[in-house]
Amino acid sequence: MVGPSVDPPVNAVREAVALALAEDLLPLGDLSASLLDASCGAETAVVARAAGVVAGRLCALEAFHQVDPTVDVDWRATDGTDVFPGTVVAQVRGPLRSILTAERTALNFLCHLSGVATATRRVVEAVAAANPSTRVVDTRKTVPGLRALQKAAVRAGGGRNHRGSLSDGVLLKDNHLGGIPIAEAVARARALFPMRTVEVECDRPDQAMEAAAAGAHIVMLDNMTPDGVADTVRALRASGYSVLVEVSGGLSESTAPAFAAAGADLLSVGALTHSARALDLGLDLGTGPELGAGFELGAR
Amino acid sequence: MVGPSVDPPVNAVREAVALALAEDLLPLGDLSASLLDASCGAETAVVARAAGVVAGRLCALEAFHQVDPTVDVDWRATDGTDVFPGTVVAQVRGPLRSILTAERTALNFLCHLSGVATATRRVVEAVAAANPSTRVVDTRKTVPGLRALQKAAVRAGGGRNHRGSLSDGVLLKDNHLGGIPIAEAVARARALFPMRTVEVECDRPDQAMEAAAAGAHIVMLDNMTPDGVADTVRALRASGYSVLVEVSGGLSESTAPAFAAAGADLLSVGALTHSARALDLGLDLGTGPELGAGFELGAR
Amino acid sequence: MVGPSVDPPVNAVREAVALALAEDLLPLGDLSASLLDASCGAETAVVARAAGVVAGRLCALEAFHQVDPTVDVDWRATDGTDVFPGTVVAQVRGPLRSILTAERTALNFLCHLSGVATATRRVVEAVAAANPSTRVVDTRKTVPGLRALQKAAVRAGGGRNHRGSLSDGVLLKDNHLGGIPIAEAVARARALFPMRTVEVECDRPDQAMEAAAAGAHIVMLDNMTPDGVADTVRALRASGYSVLVEVSGGLSESTAPAFAAAGADLLSVGALTHSARALDLGLDLGTGPELGAGFELGAR
Amino acid sequence: MVGPSVDPPVNAVREAVALALAEDLLPLGDLSASLLDASCGAETAVVARAAGVVAGRLCALEAFHQVDPTVDVDWRATDGTDVFPGTVVAQVRGPLRSILTAERTALNFLCHLSGVATATRRVVEAVAAANPSTRVVDTRKTVPGLRALQKAAVRAGGGRNHRGSLSDGVLLKDNHLGGIPIAEAVARARALFPMRTVEVECDRPDQAMEAAAAGAHIVMLDNMTPDGVADTVRALRASGYSVLVEVSGGLSESTAPAFAAAGADLLSVGALTHSARALDLGLDLGTGPELGAGFELGAR
Amino acid sequence: MVGPSVDPPVNAVREAVALALAEDLLPLGDLSASLLDASCGAETAVVARAAGVVAGRLCALEAFHQVDPTVDVDWRATDGTDVFPGTVVAQVRGPLRSILTAERTALNFLCHLSGVATATRRVVEAVAAANPSTRVVDTRKTVPGLRALQKAAVRAGGGRNHRGSLSDGVLLKDNHLGGIPIAEAVARARALFPMRTVEVECDRPDQAMEAAAAGAHIVMLDNMTPDGVADTVRALRASGYSVLVEVSGGLSESTAPAFAAAGADLLSVGALTHSARALDLGLDLGTGPELGAGFELGAR
Amino acid sequence: MVGPSVDPPVNAVREAVALALAEDLLPLGDLSASLLDASCGAETAVVARAAGVVAGRLCALEAFHQVDPTVDVDWRATDGTDVFPGTVVAQVRGPLRSILTAERTALNFLCHLSGVATATRRVVEAVAAANPSTRVVDTRKTVPGLRALQKAAVRAGGGRNHRGSLSDGVLLKDNHLGGIPIAEAVARARALFPMRTVEVECDRPDQAMEAAAAGAHIVMLDNMTPDGVADTVRALRASGYSVLVEVSGGLSESTAPAFAAAGADLLSVGALTHSARALDLGLDLGTGPELGAGFELGAR
Repeated sequence: MVGPSVDPPVNAVREAVALALAEDLLPLGDLSASLLDASCGAETAVVARAAGVVAGRLCALEAFHQVDPTVDVDWRATDGTDVFPGTVVAQVRGPLRSILTAERTALNFLCHLSGVATATRRVVEAVAAANPSTRVVDTRKTVPGLRALQKAAVRAGGGRNHRGSLSDGVLLKDNHLGGIPIAEAVARARALFPMRTVEVECDRPDQAMEAAAAGAHIVMLDNMTPDGVADTVRALRASGYSVLVEVSGGLSESTAPAFAAAGADLLSVGALTHSARALDLGLDLGTGPELGAGFELGAR
Repeated sequence: MVGPSVDPPVNAVREAVALALAEDLLPLGDLSASLLDASCGAETAVVARAAGVVAGRLCALEAFHQVDPTVDVDWRATDGTDVFPGTVVAQVRGPLRSILTAERTALNFLCHLSGVATATRRVVEAVAAANPSTRVVDTRKTVPGLRALQKAAVRAGGGRNHRGSLSDGVLLKDNHLGGIPIAEAVARARALFPMRTVEVECDRPDQAMEAAAAGAHIVMLDNMTPDGVADTVRALRASGYSVLVEVSGGLSESTAPAFAAAGADLLSVGALTHSARALDLGLDLGTGPELGAGFELGAR
Repeated sequence: MVGPSVDPPVNAVREAVALALAEDLLPLGDLSASLLDASCGAETAVVARAAGVVAGRLCALEAFHQVDPTVDVDWRATDGTDVFPGTVVAQVRGPLRSILTAERTALNFLCHLSGVATATRRVVEAVAAANPSTRVVDTRKTVPGLRALQKAAVRAGGGRNHRGSLSDGVLLKDNHLGGIPIAEAVARARALFPMRTVEVECDRPDQAMEAAAAGAHIVMLDNMTPDGVADTVRALRASGYSVLVEVSGGLSESTAPAFAAAGADLLSVGALTHSARALDLGLDLGTGPELGAGFELGAR
Repeated sequence: MVGPSVDPPVNAVREAVALALAEDLLPLGDLSASLLDASCGAETAVVARAAGVVAGRLCALEAFHQVDPTVDVDWRATDGTDVFPGTVVAQVRGPLRSILTAERTALNFLCHLSGVATATRRVVEAVAAANPSTRVVDTRKTVPGLRALQKAAVRAGGGRNHRGSLSDGVLLKDNHLGGIPIAEAVARARALFPMRTVEVECDRPDQAMEAAAAGAHIVMLDNMTPDGVADTVRALRASGYSVLVEVSGGLSESTAPAFAAAGADLLSVGALTHSARALDLGLDLGTGPELGAGFELGAR
Repeated sequence: MVGPSVDPPVNAVREAVALALAEDLLPLGDLSASLLDASCGAETAVVARAAGVVAGRLCALEAFHQVDPTVDVDWRATDGTDVFPGTVVAQVRGPLRSILTAERTALNFLCHLSGVATATRRVVEAVAAANPSTRVVDTRKTVPGLRALQKAAVRAGGGRNHRGSLSDGVLLKDNHLGGIPIAEAVARARALFPMRTVEVECDRPDQAMEAAAAGAHIVMLDNMTPDGVADTVRALRASGYSVLVEVSGGLSESTAPAFAAAGADLLSVGALTHSARALDLGLDLGTGPELGAGFELGAR
Repeated sequence: MVGPSVDPPVNAVREAVALALAEDLLPLGDLSASLLDASCGAETAVVARAAGVVAGRLCALEAFHQVDPTVDVDWRATDGTDVFPGTVVAQVRGPLRSILTAERTALNFLCHLSGVATATRRVVEAVAAANPSTRVVDTRKTVPGLRALQKAAVRAGGGRNHRGSLSDGVLLKDNHLGGIPIAEAVARARALFPMRTVEVECDRPDQAMEAAAAGAHIVMLDNMTPDGVADTVRALRASGYSVLVEVSGGLSESTAPAFAAAGADLLSVGALTHSARALDLGLDLGTGPELGAGFELGAR
């Protein structure tokens, strides 16, 4: 079965790259690159310096092309691909000035998003070993301005997307449920948003039962132990509820598998997007027979 | 002596918050909050759940106010302040719907930027113990779209800012120096940009001597050992060069102090901005005598 | 039970009004109003000239305030309220120049969105008489740029929102199902988007049964007769499927009730947003004891 | 004689399409299309399902191209062309995913703007039969954000454009004339805006005479009967005034001809833009020998 | 009689100021001001250092307020006012940091736009002495991005506005008339744009007669001598044409009066906007009893 | 030695041109050009009508291409080139309508920026004759919204760039130094911004000595006489300070050389950007064998 698309929407890519280049180039442009001869061409490579999973191809490509549409980028490792120290991710050819001017912006996207994909892959693999039917999902704890890109990187790492925004589904948390019984809140949600998924955050098994009985599509078990989750899943299934069970709350590569083994359908991991370490990728110039600089543009 | 301003430019704050709210609210708004009674008020608190340093106050405030200008935020711990589990960072009062709608956006800024400030403070303190005159600086390896905010968070953590963009100084890296002798490149840079700082990346001590002789303001020693840095600093000072010495290349809280002790003036640490873990902060509702919800707006 | 929020997201309002004012004021501003004495105040009223349902309050308010924050608007009929010829929707007081400059933009939003709400209310009432448990929903056939506002107006008219965008749910239409069996497509959708509603467009009852069996949450019966819908609903319920049944395809106030009576859960009506007639509302100046102009600002 | 340009400004097209795609694609993109094989190509057609006049070609084209520049669109019926049920408006070939992702945005523009052109053509033709020298014009009662596009669609339908904005001409309405005699207001307008058209709204024939005498270029007769208009035109011409006579106020295809016959030069019809019904156009896939899908991209 | 409004549209002001502040503050803010004590208040004054006419009040005010809404600005000389060396234009009080951060942006608007107003006033006065009924108008030769603001400054200087854009009137230049007789072009323009002013550029008197005969509202005499203009005006009036006569082509304060004396109705002067010298205005701090700094905010 | 890059950042060009076209084309487009036959092609030339230095090539090109990507522009005189009356700057071929629609926007950029380059070249040449090692630099007194473009034009004229913004260097003016001794302010600046140039405005020689002693990189001598500058330079050099000496304050082509002769390293001239006269350039159609119009597009 094919996986989900690893590409973010094209308009999200265009906007994010335009903002990032504005940050780096205004008002005077790249002072350092302007010292170079404008006719100098280069053949360079984006190379991994650590093991991980690539994401951010469209953003890096857009960064080079917004700076200079004549830069040619040949991708060797697309989003979702495992790389290792030394793996060539892309070959980048064109005017040396343009490549250097776009380099940091392109790498900032690529390293950050590959970091998200790598963190996701680590958790996904750990969870798959414990329970192949459990899915790892992201959260809305994303870096401001990068939600569409980070959520695509999560897909590149093998994760699935939780809500894209407050607008695409109902999630009733304890702060929503202060004065309203769960059953009433779920009924209200289903009546007002009949075509949306309705999810309820539950701290105790009886709340999960109440939510399932009221017609919630998903219950989110927050800060429970794996045993508590296992008990809750058993109770729900024993009562015939097909409600999806999500576990949430500070999950990591090391703690997630136990909840998968406990029968959770979904494990949501905020750290995939709010705390991913960048994957180390660099731009190499002039090492190896395929790379070089200093030649006249058009001469090769 | 007063420290640097911890505030990012106000326009960077407004733009970043508007983008982040657009991500989370369009097109249909906050479905879940819309289930609540519009007349319900709340007194809530942003509370630290881990130790760290706060940053992002202006962004969080702007997030609440762009959603609803009547939300009142009373800051107890401003940017640069140390917090611990349980520290109240801010009290937030107003319509419950509005607070919940803005909550995640406000926290996404606050947790991310406090993460940057916290990571900075850790390195700054480790370095200060080794050499109180060494400064920790950031890099251009920032998360796309957040440069102004991240660089302010670095200041909140006690770091200093390296270049803000390609436009504000000259940094000649190996990729720039392919075909040009250092002395010539520095001379060209100083001639064309007489009012700018000129920095040269050096892999070897003799390159640093050449750059200093040519009039570079800063030499960046890349991927040297602490001993190599100490030797280079000695050689530079012995020749009477007052050039600043920056050390760069995968520095961390554990590796940085040795380079400080070796006499580096500046230690640039990309991980402060590209790989900071979010600081765990949450919004508490209804715990303690000052918090609560369910009352009529205006009744308290 | 409270209804859904009739307000669009505040940022959608701000952006749409700013665009609309740019259309009407650039580059030279309001030539005609500039002929008036700047010190002249006015008390005016937005008055309905036809029967209908109001929507667009936040947009009209924003239009007046972006032009001049000192204009005071007192709403008498908020979104979702029935109005009749002569009903005062709002009283608007302030500098005459500012009111006239903002008038058309404010009314363009108010008339258009009230038209959407009115069209919705008509269908909702006709359907309610036939089957009180059937919901009227909108579509993605919205006027470009106004989706958030139109979908809020649908809610003001008593309708519910179908997908807000391509990003918030899966709807498999015939064009998606060209080469894939329904069961496989639904399975793929549920596996890749486990937290989303999955809907399948069906032209025949057997397709609806296949979709329901595969786990679709909603089946959309397209261009069926009421009898065909009734048969399909019976077959689905007889097999124990709780799948929601949506009917679609050129529905109107006159044709919708029969499908409601046939047991449809949801009736989606594109015309609510793509073909709504504007509700006739105008700005009255100087009729009645409360209105007037020509006095000095601040004199009353 | 050639007609006016039916194309809106290119920048208006780009901006409107970018906004519309943002509405439909952010943050996660087209979930449904992402389930399809990325290598699948399609040959599709935009086909009319009702009789009318096409408008919106540039917008639809831009929608396809902003999503994917490799989509090829071959127009068979450009703006201003009459179409009938079954008329192929355009053939659209390219990656199936891209076509489906752009489909609704492209059609929303095309259906809405064709609706405006169609409504205009109906009135234009009715009026032409009554008085071939009378022109049908639009108003500023446009859908917010779409003024440039709607006004181009009016031209495609054979109408002419009234003011584009408050900035391009003077129109003195009753609300402007509260405290100022018409003659004085016109004199002031002509003095301050000597290069602009000055128009005056008149409720009575004597006002029209006063405005013409004062040098107004156009008088707008508001809410008069056809006989009243005929009398006014006669009086103006008898006095030798060449002022243009516009009739306004709830005009429609059925009521407009009588005013044309009465000698009006211009009939302004707000409903062309504020209440036009969308023209029914759809995207057909795989019917007829020229259409199809499922083939490999590049294989045909 | 009141003059035209000297204010540009409020949205033009907001956008232009936001762009200008982005230019000056991103990414790191005002480094120099950040060295000052945040609690230091200041009383400062914008003071003229040369004689001229003020324009740009709304922009300067907006600059201070976008930086810090607590800055208080008290205007002593509004747009259109004559100032002399030493005239206080405005008093500006508030946090010293904020005032210094906004200073240059505020002054850049004020000096540039006052320069436009001053240049306009010079020509207007010279022309008025020659022919009080001749009007000085601007052109579309404006500095990119500042059209709305520059055209308001022209009004502040006593000039009138020619076209605001290509969209608000027809001007047939020689490049338009290459293959079409003037009479035909004018007829086409009036037929397609019946509500717009139609102007024709003429190099010879007979062209002006042809244009007037065809119904042009304005003839623009380009690069004629004053005598040529006088002859043309006489010929037009002798034939009973009331067409407005505009003279254009490199006019200045010294050359314009002769054309006014020759009977031109309108003199268009591109230099008002494309080559205006900035008016010298500065921000004074601490001179005189009302100015000062160093006090605690709130202490006065 | 190669000179600095004369090109502004590409994103600054795109944004500025988009804004300028919006000013000129919205909402109805180019009324006049729409009267022409859409199939008419033209060969035109941008021709200098006065002597000067060209700048703005990228902006003019972008203006033509945003209007119509099929317009072909062949540059004969790029930025920094001297031109004389009659010099062909560029040949422009394509659809006549498109060329005329973009003409004014393209020329507005080209004339304004060439004016800045020309003014710069004049001062640069006058200064070079007096002291070849003195550099002419711009200021932050730029026209709002055009800073990146104007500063590139200064480079095209042979000038150098002072600060790009408040964010890229420290400049302590008298308003900053109210309550702080120079030595303390410089020390603070160097401590907080160790990687930035620190400059101090000085009214007296002793201030310059104090600033140099404190470690300032540049002293700006404001409103001194040439003799005062010469004395100050001598005193600084006698004390062994290598600090750069900038002279500022109303400098012009006539007054600058004396300060250069006095030994200033840098002369900053605000008038280069705030008061440059536009260079007169026009678009010629149909003169000479290479130009023409009226032919069918594609026929040549």
